Amino acid sequence: MIGERELIRRISEILGGVESDDCAVIDAGECYLVATTDMLHRQTDFPDIMTPWQIGWMAVAVNLSDIAAMGAKPAGVLIAAGLPPESDLYFIDELFSGFGDCAAYFGTLIIGGDTDSHQELTITGCALGFVKKDLVLRRRGARVGDLLCTTGTLGGAGGGLWAWKRGELQNKFIEKLLEPEPRLAEGQALAQSRAVTAMMDNSDGLALSLFDLAEVNRVGFQVSENKLPIAPGLAEMMGQEEAVNAVMSAGGDFELVFTVKPEGLEAARKACDLTVIGRVVEEGIWMEVEGERRRISPKGFEHIIGRR
Amino acid sequence: MIGERELIRRISEILGGVESDDCAVIDAGECYLVATTDMLHRQTDFPDIMTPWQIGWMAVAVNLSDIAAMGAKPAGVLIAAGLPPESDLYFIDELFSGFGDCAAYFGTLIIGGDTDSHQELTITGCALGFVKKDLVLRRRGARVGDLLCTTGTLGGAGGGLWAWKRGELQNKFIEKLLEPEPRLAEGQALAQSRAVTAMMDNSDGLALSLFDLAEVNRVGFQVSENKLPIAPGLAEMMGQEEAVNAVMSAGGDFELVFTVKPEGLEAARKACDLTVIGRVVEEGIWMEVEGERRRISPKGFEHIIGRR
Repeated sequence: MIGERELIRRISEILGGVESDDCAVIDAGECYLVATTDMLHRQTDFPDIMTPWQIGWMAVAVNLSDIAAMGAKPAGVLIAAGLPPESDLYFIDELFSGFGDCAAYFGTLIIGGDTDSHQELTITGCALGFVKKDLVLRRRGARVGDLLCTTGTLGGAGGGLWAWKRGELQNKFIEKLLEPEPRLAEGQALAQSRAVTAMMDNSDGLALSLFDLAEVNRVGFQVSENKLPIAPGLAEMMGQEEAVNAVMSAGGDFELVFTVKPEGLEAARKACDLTVIGRVVEEGIWMEVEGERRRISPKGFEHIIGRR
Repeated sequence: MIGERELIRRISEILGGVESDDCAVIDAGECYLVATTDMLHRQTDFPDIMTPWQIGWMAVAVNLSDIAAMGAKPAGVLIAAGLPPESDLYFIDELFSGFGDCAAYFGTLIIGGDTDSHQELTITGCALGFVKKDLVLRRRGARVGDLLCTTGTLGGAGGGLWAWKRGELQNKFIEKLLEPEPRLAEGQALAQSRAVTAMMDNSDGLALSLFDLAEVNRVGFQVSENKLPIAPGLAEMMGQEEAVNAVMSAGGDFELVFTVKPEGLEAARKACDLTVIGRVVEEGIWMEVEGERRRISPKGFEHIIGRR
């Protein structure tokens, strides 16, 4: 089978070019309607330690993260659920409670859907949102000299994956992996700040986000390793090098990665907690480690959870 | 596993009640945004005679039919495609051309999506549309005395299924089954006519549509068998009784079933070709055959294609 990126390029050609944002953008009068869909399924996306409630939460959260990345306010989520024949009422109740609880936690609702019998548990979410036209945040817009920023801390989900693979199921990072919290409030506040020039989520890891932003904007990035807000305790657990790998390529963190014009940094900081991790440069994706510049590779394909 | 209707009732309870329309309805200023999702997969929804292009067409068409049923104009379609590892470039090109061609044929676009590797080909579409608030058509609104109407002809898809099962692959009804044409222009024109009181599509067969409309509106329906616009040639092919069964329960026709206030019939007829097939009564779902009234049963679960 062809690679994911080649596939997307080919599909884009067939369908006449799709702008590469976290969401599709549709004119809706004063606002843009933004819309996204993500298909998740048992084998690839739901480690067997996940409870049905966590599966439900996850399926909604990954879609809402795309809404957050546009600076939009969620307007509803549709869920199509392909349920295996052996699903019992406990499973169904917990799964759908997970959908509903995640939506409600982020101020929205499950507004509709479809159910179907399916050999492998398969859940496709579709999240909708609205954002004022002059506030919408897109992947395109970063300029050389802008500051590269992230919300929250990084690598926690990768730490959860690491712990899970070692059977350490009580590890605090597991929850970070299985119950992600998309940055909806932060996305909207950053949009309001008018300081952000480009934004996307980091669901496939920071490295892939940087490669995507670099391609769309025809720029490069330089990240400072010592500025990365590595999740507290992560380096102690798995070592500094592995912790940085988790940040760059494990995926599953669902933070926002964005660029800010230098004169807007104060406004952006008022909008939400953020960390400046680097800056937009002419070309290349670089990590600055102890004064040295190293090339970052796209990697990030080994993730178990998270896709754009 | 529990039945589909019980499942939907349970889910609706967990999620706090979802209005049973073909689409979810969201406030979008002057308009309503309407949104729907349908998950289709190889084993249940794509007979092996379907070409990849037809699979693509079908996946978009079933979603657009729900937009049509609200009287809305489509604003875009998202497609999440879980592709089996053995998918070659021919398959992918044809499948995605089918998505794009169906969307374009009905005046809209594939605006985004997600691709994923999946053991069984699984396609979830999500269609969006807009409709002026005072024009939106819902399942609720039918009153006793209203006329029951349908667009187009009925039973053709069931005829295709019948022919396919008998290996008659050149049969003219096969195309009706595999390349459905949702009634988008008709839905919008009927909304503009302001004559329609309730509407839905008949994708699971006329009988199930009537049961759904009856439940939402707390009314009944009486259909006249001799008024049914049975697809030309269908009764000759499979006999009158089987043809009526195809109309009532085979599914896959994707026509609009709607009720019209008697004084609005002329306006509705100006909007599109329609057939009055019966009327709204106090209770029960009845078929009038040669002056006799027989109860119609919900059946309709044997369909291979089409879901709400």
